[in-house]
Amino acid sequence: MTTPRTDRSQGEFELIERLFAPLAREFAGAFDLKDDVAALPPKAHHELVLKTDSTIEGVHFLLGDSPLTVAQKALRRPLSDLAAKGAEPQVYLLAIALPDSVENTWLESFVEGLAQDQKQFGIALAGGETNWTPGALTVTVTMIGWVPEGRLVRRSGAREGDEVWVTGTIGDAAGGLALLKHEAATDGAERDYLIARFHVPQPRLAFGLALPEFASAAIDVSDGLVADLGHVADVSGVKIEIDLSCVPLSAELSALWGRDEETMLRAVSGGDDYEIAFSAPTSAAKRVMAAAAGRRTPVTRIGRVVEGSPGVAVRGLRGREIPMLYKGYTHF
Amino acid sequence: MTTPRTDRSQGEFELIERLFAPLAREFAGAFDLKDDVAALPPKAHHELVLKTDSTIEGVHFLLGDSPLTVAQKALRRPLSDLAAKGAEPQVYLLAIALPDSVENTWLESFVEGLAQDQKQFGIALAGGETNWTPGALTVTVTMIGWVPEGRLVRRSGAREGDEVWVTGTIGDAAGGLALLKHEAATDGAERDYLIARFHVPQPRLAFGLALPEFASAAIDVSDGLVADLGHVADVSGVKIEIDLSCVPLSAELSALWGRDEETMLRAVSGGDDYEIAFSAPTSAAKRVMAAAAGRRTPVTRIGRVVEGSPGVAVRGLRGREIPMLYKGYTHF
Repeated sequence: MTTPRTDRSQGEFELIERLFAPLAREFAGAFDLKDDVAALPPKAHHELVLKTDSTIEGVHFLLGDSPLTVAQKALRRPLSDLAAKGAEPQVYLLAIALPDSVENTWLESFVEGLAQDQKQFGIALAGGETNWTPGALTVTVTMIGWVPEGRLVRRSGAREGDEVWVTGTIGDAAGGLALLKHEAATDGAERDYLIARFHVPQPRLAFGLALPEFASAAIDVSDGLVADLGHVADVSGVKIEIDLSCVPLSAELSALWGRDEETMLRAVSGGDDYEIAFSAPTSAAKRVMAAAAGRRTPVTRIGRVVEGSPGVAVRGLRGREIPMLYKGYTHF
Repeated sequence: MTTPRTDRSQGEFELIERLFAPLAREFAGAFDLKDDVAALPPKAHHELVLKTDSTIEGVHFLLGDSPLTVAQKALRRPLSDLAAKGAEPQVYLLAIALPDSVENTWLESFVEGLAQDQKQFGIALAGGETNWTPGALTVTVTMIGWVPEGRLVRRSGAREGDEVWVTGTIGDAAGGLALLKHEAATDGAERDYLIARFHVPQPRLAFGLALPEFASAAIDVSDGLVADLGHVADVSGVKIEIDLSCVPLSAELSALWGRDEETMLRAVSGGDDYEIAFSAPTSAAKRVMAAAAGRRTPVTRIGRVVEGSPGVAVRGLRGREIPMLYKGYTHF
């Protein structure tokens, strides 16, 4: 870690480095954060998979949020991208820009969050940098992993006739966000579950490793199910039709919002699901189900790649096609 | 590139993506920035070298600075780290956080700066992310390169008896910064040269590639020559003695500040030199000079690794040792 001249005192930065150094202990190529760079030995017959993601105060979290969940969000967003490509994460680089307002106790909890997730996902800190910022606290993570050569699951491989699947449940984070914004109300376990789904992504890494066995295309669902399948449709040059009635909702979200068409449309256009949407040939359905069972990951068939010009068509609860008028789907 | 919900319109973000996509055209593993991740094939008998660096408005640059030089600074700071390790850069990831105040014309020049440097240094954009930020414009670059297996030049290899060298001239950026802060005054070519040295690092990549042939330890000089040699001394567990009278100053800096002891001390404790300081056995001196000549890189012998407890001793112009009272050297 380098520590450019800053408004924090040298002593404070030394403390910060002491906090981060233990996170790098298990990766030899981090050199205890005491060199200019990190070094990563190659892995035979694998290619490297790389993803960088910034998590920004006021955009992805608020300073009042638990520092533990901020750390988790910062690591798990790029982990979810690796999961959707069939990759296995190994190490990450961290660039953190700290405003003066951040207390060392905040940082200690943040580092504890990183440490817990390192354990859970088998990753380690390879290197990084701490800077002072006059602006918003910004955590940029570059996640680095491996995929067997030629086995990266792209967005571009969806083909007419393929079935379209999604892991887990959709819309929970949108429900959690609505609760936090007081646009909806419930309490108890339901509330906790939905808010946790907003704050703490659960990247589908175990299931992701099975994707290369059957998936023709895959994407991490972060902008919203329809928006992200739109990316697959565009890049693959195919039309994807999804059946709203098949989209899996959690019991908690159904209790909050019901299961009418409006709810389903909100669910498929909300963001932050961090599930995996993928296409696979019909002939692979048994393998999909077996992988899901073996890795304890719920999967649901929600649609199909059909003939037509590239895009996503959504079939509503009464079978009619719902026109999606918005372009890009990220703004409702 | 992903574009989370933001205060910029979707159309603006599409424009931004159009700006960045051409930077990724020459690297197949960037997938035209149209997938979740970037993929990098392994390079036989090489290890990967990784460095992440944030360049922040109000810390490393001002919004009034030329966007071209901001782009150059963002890329060249981590390039200089790779140079000091004997590594060859290949691709980079870019995470950019944009406040509303940034105009598209600013971005166009910024991208032009990236494009020029990609050409100059033979690198390409592998992937990235654009976000809106309520705070300071922040550019985080993760630079990725290669070094032949086992040939990474560490900070830890300096040994008693080694000579200590530095490339180029020291203190120019400190002189440029003093001019910008109106703490000093000169004009014409002298002023332009010193300010350019502050704004635009010139990473010593060509010379860096020769380092593994002779260097026992090396470091990128960014915090200040004495501070950075302090890191080498600490990690190598040796005492480094540098002779102030040997430290190379440019004609421009000498004209501005003279060459008295006070000037020399300012030069060795200023930052942003982006030169390489390294140690090498005495027996390697001829190889050092040959590499310097072959790669048109000035090098100067400035000191020696001596017996004593770890740290840096500075011998002044009249031969007496100057006590360096500050710890860490980054704050004068």
